Amino acid sequence: MGTSLLDTDLLAHGLARIQGEVDATFDALLPVPEDARSRLVEAMRHAVIGGGKRVRPMLVITVAEMYNVDREAAIRAGCAIEAIHAYSLVHDDLPCMDDDAMRHGKPSTHAAFGEAIAVLAGDSLHALAFEILSDTATSGDPFVRADLVRCLATASGHDGMAGGQMMDIAAEGAGFDLHTVTRLQQLKTGALLCAAVEMGAILGHVPEEGRTLLRAYARDIGLAFQIADDLLDHEGDEALAGKALRKDAEAGKATFVSLMGAEAARAQARALSEQAIGHLVQHGPEADLLRALARYVVERDH
Amino acid sequence: MGTSLLDTDLLAHGLARIQGEVDATFDALLPVPEDARSRLVEAMRHAVIGGGKRVRPMLVITVAEMYNVDREAAIRAGCAIEAIHAYSLVHDDLPCMDDDAMRHGKPSTHAAFGEAIAVLAGDSLHALAFEILSDTATSGDPFVRADLVRCLATASGHDGMAGGQMMDIAAEGAGFDLHTVTRLQQLKTGALLCAAVEMGAILGHVPEEGRTLLRAYARDIGLAFQIADDLLDHEGDEALAGKALRKDAEAGKATFVSLMGAEAARAQARALSEQAIGHLVQHGPEADLLRALARYVVERDH
Repeated sequence: MGTSLLDTDLLAHGLARIQGEVDATFDALLPVPEDARSRLVEAMRHAVIGGGKRVRPMLVITVAEMYNVDREAAIRAGCAIEAIHAYSLVHDDLPCMDDDAMRHGKPSTHAAFGEAIAVLAGDSLHALAFEILSDTATSGDPFVRADLVRCLATASGHDGMAGGQMMDIAAEGAGFDLHTVTRLQQLKTGALLCAAVEMGAILGHVPEEGRTLLRAYARDIGLAFQIADDLLDHEGDEALAGKALRKDAEAGKATFVSLMGAEAARAQARALSEQAIGHLVQHGPEADLLRALARYVVERDH
Repeated sequence: MGTSLLDTDLLAHGLARIQGEVDATFDALLPVPEDARSRLVEAMRHAVIGGGKRVRPMLVITVAEMYNVDREAAIRAGCAIEAIHAYSLVHDDLPCMDDDAMRHGKPSTHAAFGEAIAVLAGDSLHALAFEILSDTATSGDPFVRADLVRCLATASGHDGMAGGQMMDIAAEGAGFDLHTVTRLQQLKTGALLCAAVEMGAILGHVPEEGRTLLRAYARDIGLAFQIADDLLDHEGDEALAGKALRKDAEAGKATFVSLMGAEAARAQARALSEQAIGHLVQHGPEADLLRALARYVVERDH
């Protein structure tokens, strides 16, 4: 069940290629203006270029290519969801939120640019996501453009990612049970991962039946990812993670590890990973990157 | 040239009607969930229901009705732009930004709910705006939905409102000249006012020629509004304004009043107001609300 060398190579190559494409797209989308807005755009670039694994763009692009979508369009949609992910990290790192000075092994945006510019840079990345999706360069089909927007806005708002972040704030000392922690994580990280495969499916005009299986895949890897994250937070190395660890335990928040114990949590993450791969049974080698990701999320060391 | 009683009545009735419709729409869109997200949705409701003049929805709705758009659709689009305006105020009021404890005569969102929830409530209102626009209830025409999103995202991001806010941060002690202050204000408040008339025009399938005149109207009232705002900030009453005044002067920021003097600024605002009305010459009584607004922005006392 471990990650084979082949898997690791496939995933490493797939992600490296997408990282290059995502960075190049953001570089082209965000030229630094020669006026008083320059620091804002520099902060946006700091937050969104040259950092992060690009898992969400990878999901959009891989699913889209399974259905023969033009890669350029898929990269743009991938950048839109990555802009949402990046804005949420910028705001999450603020002193009034998680107060993290480091992110992806470099200073977080507010540490580098100050809090006010970090708030605005997050807001501007948020707007950029919808600017990208509503542009005809992402899709000539207005149904697709409007549908991508609906999908991403719903997944990131109060009924999705932001709602999960609110639950995370409320978690402190609240003694959440396993059901509530699962729900919290499904919103906080799961909603955006589901949106990633859904956006690939929207671009690919995938019928509802195919979407249901892809969503099930995303739900399973999302939960597996979060359980693995809790395990890494519990046992991991701060230098390797590039961020502070064990903050949940210190804040008195329930985690999968605190509720299930490390061994049961590890077994659960592995079972979810296998289950995720099972949802891809109707797909051939074109879904190998998704399979490799499902294995990686539970085997990674950072 | 002053505001006639008729004008005041027309505008007061028009705005009161729209305020009721906007509040009712947000009330329906934001039921408070019975889980740990409740405080987030309460904070969103605090920020977006029962406060503000609703000038931007009024512009969307009035322009849309000039072109026979279904009022329900126009109200939804008006709520989307108001959600953007409201999120920007929530973030603007944060301690790391303008640090305002009061807004619309009540505690600002972070004063009432804490900073972390205020950041998230702003982010969630931001997402809500695009959720509303991408919903088929706003328009059955996917071209219209995608176009509304493009218009609002561009006007609110780093090339619009957020860019203007960045210039405002950079203004402190920078000795901006009149040209730069004008550009700052065109981005900070003008971009969203232009987007409001543009969104009405998108809903109404207005040809480019008509849009150009409507945008010119919005540009003129936006600048007139801002000059009047500087005058009120210079001469106004804090209790009536419902917010702290004279903060720009204290922060060493150039304003229209500091650069032109109060009398020249007042004359300029009035000239812009008349010019705005001139752009409506091809419209009949259906544009009277826009004319009344153009007069009001320079005659208001808060």
